[in-house]
Amino acid sequence: MRAAVFRGPRSIEVDDRPDPVVAEPTDAVVRVVLGCVCGSDLWYYRGLSPHALGPIGHEFVGVVEQVGADVRAVAEGDLVVAPFKYSDGTCAHCRAGWTSSCVAGGAFGTDGFDGGQGEAVRVPFADGTLVRVQGSRHSYETMLSLLALSDVMGTGHHAAVSAGVRPESVAAVVGDGAVGLCGVIAARRLGAARIIALSRNPGRQALARSFGATDILAERGDAATEAVLELTDGIGVDAALECVGTAESMATALAVARPGSTVGFVGVPHGVELPIDTMFSRNIGLRGGSAPVRAYLPDLLDDVIAGRIEPGRVFDFETDLDGIAKAYAAMDERRAIKSLVRVGTV
Amino acid sequence: MRAAVFRGPRSIEVDDRPDPVVAEPTDAVVRVVLGCVCGSDLWYYRGLSPHALGPIGHEFVGVVEQVGADVRAVAEGDLVVAPFKYSDGTCAHCRAGWTSSCVAGGAFGTDGFDGGQGEAVRVPFADGTLVRVQGSRHSYETMLSLLALSDVMGTGHHAAVSAGVRPESVAAVVGDGAVGLCGVIAARRLGAARIIALSRNPGRQALARSFGATDILAERGDAATEAVLELTDGIGVDAALECVGTAESMATALAVARPGSTVGFVGVPHGVELPIDTMFSRNIGLRGGSAPVRAYLPDLLDDVIAGRIEPGRVFDFETDLDGIAKAYAAMDERRAIKSLVRVGTV
Repeated sequence: MRAAVFRGPRSIEVDDRPDPVVAEPTDAVVRVVLGCVCGSDLWYYRGLSPHALGPIGHEFVGVVEQVGADVRAVAEGDLVVAPFKYSDGTCAHCRAGWTSSCVAGGAFGTDGFDGGQGEAVRVPFADGTLVRVQGSRHSYETMLSLLALSDVMGTGHHAAVSAGVRPESVAAVVGDGAVGLCGVIAARRLGAARIIALSRNPGRQALARSFGATDILAERGDAATEAVLELTDGIGVDAALECVGTAESMATALAVARPGSTVGFVGVPHGVELPIDTMFSRNIGLRGGSAPVRAYLPDLLDDVIAGRIEPGRVFDFETDLDGIAKAYAAMDERRAIKSLVRVGTV
Repeated sequence: MRAAVFRGPRSIEVDDRPDPVVAEPTDAVVRVVLGCVCGSDLWYYRGLSPHALGPIGHEFVGVVEQVGADVRAVAEGDLVVAPFKYSDGTCAHCRAGWTSSCVAGGAFGTDGFDGGQGEAVRVPFADGTLVRVQGSRHSYETMLSLLALSDVMGTGHHAAVSAGVRPESVAAVVGDGAVGLCGVIAARRLGAARIIALSRNPGRQALARSFGATDILAERGDAATEAVLELTDGIGVDAALECVGTAESMATALAVARPGSTVGFVGVPHGVELPIDTMFSRNIGLRGGSAPVRAYLPDLLDDVIAGRIEPGRVFDFETDLDGIAKAYAAMDERRAIKSLVRVGTV
């Protein structure tokens, strides 16, 4: 099969790779229909984080091509969504809903496991990992939203859940990337009455508004904090979603959170030092991390199928597998919010 | 009146101070019956944190001697418990239950405000701050438990609430000081099925057991983490209470917390650096800080009066106001869990 491979910083190519086969009775092989590039892929693309040379990508939807003898939940021909991590579904952490901490789990596109930016993927623990989509004929828009469930929508949801968004909450979303925009969807979905999105990009501002943001602030740093406090009568927000992972975004999220509230953080931290003294004195909590997307998938899938949420609208750049290098470049240069890679026939 | 004053590290004296008077119509003057020394007092006592020279102590129960014209909730002759911070009870943070973040609030025994280690205290915002105790005749044991509600019991409760202790939880309590021991009471009160207390002191171990600890571990550091994991089938605990504030205690609390759980921290942090990368990868949250004791007081008071909790048992050293220096020394030298100071007539 053909698949994208990482050759080193800013070097993404398509290469021939062995066709995946069922190696364990709990495996499935999935023929990829749609894949995409994640904001977190940019860290190694830019040379800022290590990544093994080889297959990449951890988000995909596809059709089951083959299953091992022990697989029960999916069958050949099923349309499936894969979360970015595989998980056995049976360990104590999986049973508690923390599939991203599965004791036998791992991420696609790492450690020699097939990535989602290729024609096919061997999926370990197919029953614990894959989520079957009812029906096989869906609109192109729905297919994009299903793909967003692989990571960004579940991750934005994790930010909102971790921050404790509830009905009538006032929420702030720091970050206008695909995850931040999905965080807006999630905050709205959980009933937030007011959603303050921080963005200085007109296209992203418009998308945030259409997803449910009630206020848009273009300020950054201390000016952003002041602006949020001004909007909230000096109180701060009930829930702050940190969807970037930089020192500045974390500082803003912590500063706009009202006493007793929690920052939900899902941006992979880079250079962040937490100010424990002010967290203590102001009672600002911090929760989040690598999202247990598999646990969230069924509920979010229902909302996508019913048309209640449209996270697929974050894709604003499209190419095919041969254009994978362009897909990375468009995001690296911030020309795209999120790049879609058409691999199979939709 | 006579009151304890801080003269500098390891120098605590009793001196004459002006008699408190009602200065604002929302003030009350309280004649102190019982005061005590807090673990957090040791930081300035040892010269490790700054503190203004002057009155000290932030925990007391007493009898209302005089009230301002606008005070409605308490009256002359009422037995009252004071939380360690005064709060107006009306600002947005107070109304949300975060009285320790009151916009007009502050702590007793700081910034020139009377401390609890003295004969009388001017209490700002008496309606928002003081909690009246029904009846005036209580056993000595009950009086000690009422005094514990000023800080340590509410603070231990804050650790348990922040860590998310629920019925059937497996909890670990890091720290066997008065706050940690009250954390055990709080975890039991919230329904924890298993409470693992970390202590190497036989007397404190026994008290922890009588408060509800089901397991005692004498290990520290990595050995403590291994021991907790062994007790929990390698899973970790549902809720970790960090009741010390040192780098080692925080590291242990974070390490024993299972993925997706939260460390509730109430030890004033000293030299703690948070490992954000592992918090992210393991989804370990952190919540807590300066406890909103006033908000917790009514419920905990009911339990003290009904005899359901006995936090006053943490007091194991007694003296009068003239013995205040000995009260500090006993805690400094770890001869006492918590020192009681008899000021008025019980």
